[in-house]
Amino acid sequence: VTTDAEILRALRTAGDSGIAGGDLSQEVGLRPRALHKHLETLRGLGYDIESGPHLGYRLRRSPDLLHADDLHSRLGKTRTIGRDIRVFQETTSTNDVVEKLARDQVKEGVVVFAEAQTRGRGRLGRKWLSAPGKGLWFSVLLRPRLQPEVATQVTIAAATALARAIRTETELRPEIKWPNDILIGGRKAAGILTELSAELDSVKYVIVGIGVDVNQTPADFPPELRKLAVSLRMARGQPLDRAGLAAAILRQLDEDYARVLRGGFDALADEWEAQCSTLGHDVVIQVGPRKIRGRAESLDPSGALLLRTPHGHLERISGGDVTLERHETHDPAF
Amino acid sequence: VTTDAEILRALRTAGDSGIAGGDLSQEVGLRPRALHKHLETLRGLGYDIESGPHLGYRLRRSPDLLHADDLHSRLGKTRTIGRDIRVFQETTSTNDVVEKLARDQVKEGVVVFAEAQTRGRGRLGRKWLSAPGKGLWFSVLLRPRLQPEVATQVTIAAATALARAIRTETELRPEIKWPNDILIGGRKAAGILTELSAELDSVKYVIVGIGVDVNQTPADFPPELRKLAVSLRMARGQPLDRAGLAAAILRQLDEDYARVLRGGFDALADEWEAQCSTLGHDVVIQVGPRKIRGRAESLDPSGALLLRTPHGHLERISGGDVTLERHETHDPAF
Repeated sequence: VTTDAEILRALRTAGDSGIAGGDLSQEVGLRPRALHKHLETLRGLGYDIESGPHLGYRLRRSPDLLHADDLHSRLGKTRTIGRDIRVFQETTSTNDVVEKLARDQVKEGVVVFAEAQTRGRGRLGRKWLSAPGKGLWFSVLLRPRLQPEVATQVTIAAATALARAIRTETELRPEIKWPNDILIGGRKAAGILTELSAELDSVKYVIVGIGVDVNQTPADFPPELRKLAVSLRMARGQPLDRAGLAAAILRQLDEDYARVLRGGFDALADEWEAQCSTLGHDVVIQVGPRKIRGRAESLDPSGALLLRTPHGHLERISGGDVTLERHETHDPAF
Repeated sequence: VTTDAEILRALRTAGDSGIAGGDLSQEVGLRPRALHKHLETLRGLGYDIESGPHLGYRLRRSPDLLHADDLHSRLGKTRTIGRDIRVFQETTSTNDVVEKLARDQVKEGVVVFAEAQTRGRGRLGRKWLSAPGKGLWFSVLLRPRLQPEVATQVTIAAATALARAIRTETELRPEIKWPNDILIGGRKAAGILTELSAELDSVKYVIVGIGVDVNQTPADFPPELRKLAVSLRMARGQPLDRAGLAAAILRQLDEDYARVLRGGFDALADEWEAQCSTLGHDVVIQVGPRKIRGRAESLDPSGALLLRTPHGHLERISGGDVTLERHETHDPAF
């Protein structure tokens, strides 16, 4: 953890009452002169840090930017995720960056954010739009010492953590669309792209890429997406602090990943099922070239979806594109 | 296919009777002068090509080396595998090379051979010894448009193809040890390392790495391996044409991969089971940190091993280290 991260954490802990210069110096282990230099740097980045002889130091406002030290200061101590945070102003895709780190034997838990992605990806190589500075696009490197099938559990954990973080930070009611989308009012607000590198019986690494549409306005979405996509800002009517949301998501993800590792997937699956908009519905799932129709019944222990087909048997599906079946009502009002 | 590959193929087709210079010129589409230059290059590599005014051209002997054009000429036409063959004199590991090609969007079917590997790998990052020029070490890039679970089917297909090729080329009786070893007389002669890159519901690519101990003598193995490993040469008592075996393996692999793609895994599994030294035995399987004991019963449709545990239920295992349980007989003769 850097000095800047410690300064921001001390300021945040002090809150509105502020912290005396001497106390802050001592807490972060800097002489006043050195502390002053650090504060100037932070001010230069846009951190509005008030100071005065009787006032001490007070953080009035953080800029709307992703800053690794700040993210660290907000995140606090975690088990695995976020021990190493890197922020890029622009990259092709954060999953690409993390893949390179994974091949260079970087330890699990590293998180890479980008303010803009030039080749953001959704599932199956689909393009993912990343309006610069408006959303959160980040990827996490994990190295669970588990069988490859667990990749689905990790995705379920990420979706649960992401939904929980959005709920606590916004009071919106996100729904999970199996396996990897977060919907608000039926429109997509966030997505997860899990990529796996494995041998037959062991994971080499899993990359969990998360994209959240946070502060976009309708004008930020191309016309063809406006009915399908929504930002948290659009859903709640006011903008959101991206860095605070990012820290909340990482903290929840750290919790839920630990649950997966210690075999606690069942409790996770219960929470997931309670928020899932897919279960209990008749759906069509596109798996590669194949379309499978049935009723989404539940998750199996590995996180795969169990689908009851019209012939009555259960199909186990580890991933795919879900469409809810529309039962035509022939009611002219619809 | 290159001109050298076409020349070698024409010479092989002609066999001992040889082919007249004019016919060879015409068949490969070269004027005599250009043909002569190509023949000189091949002779320089060690191909013993006899020629004479009445004799025409005749291939008397091929050198013991892996040459992409020659491998092409021996392989003939395949559906997928070997459309592109590359031979390295030395590399870290052929799986590494193919992984780079995969990320560069190279099409499936490319095969990379190396005469020597400086960091040959077995499963779980274990070291694999690759005595230069004595064995076959190669990797194949596949892009099956299937779910990630199919990686196990691809490994089963590779083991079946490898065993069949060894049987037809040597008349030895290879046994398959689930999931990825080929044994002869209880000692390991070949292995398969399958690496998978995937999203939840779709394979990005599978790399099948194959290592075969072909012409090693006991002195080529370190003392601690001599009881565990064997080369085909040691097992049959005479050296083997490596390039011929390589072409046979690729041809069989091409067949069996096509069977997997068209959903014909059941027939493949039957053939596999008939040669498997694991099924029907009490085994201990190490899966990551976990040891699972039971009787190996059969393969499930995805290629995973079904193990009947002492409590009577079936465990599905996608990969692991198998040890046969020794039932002590207390017979002093054993």
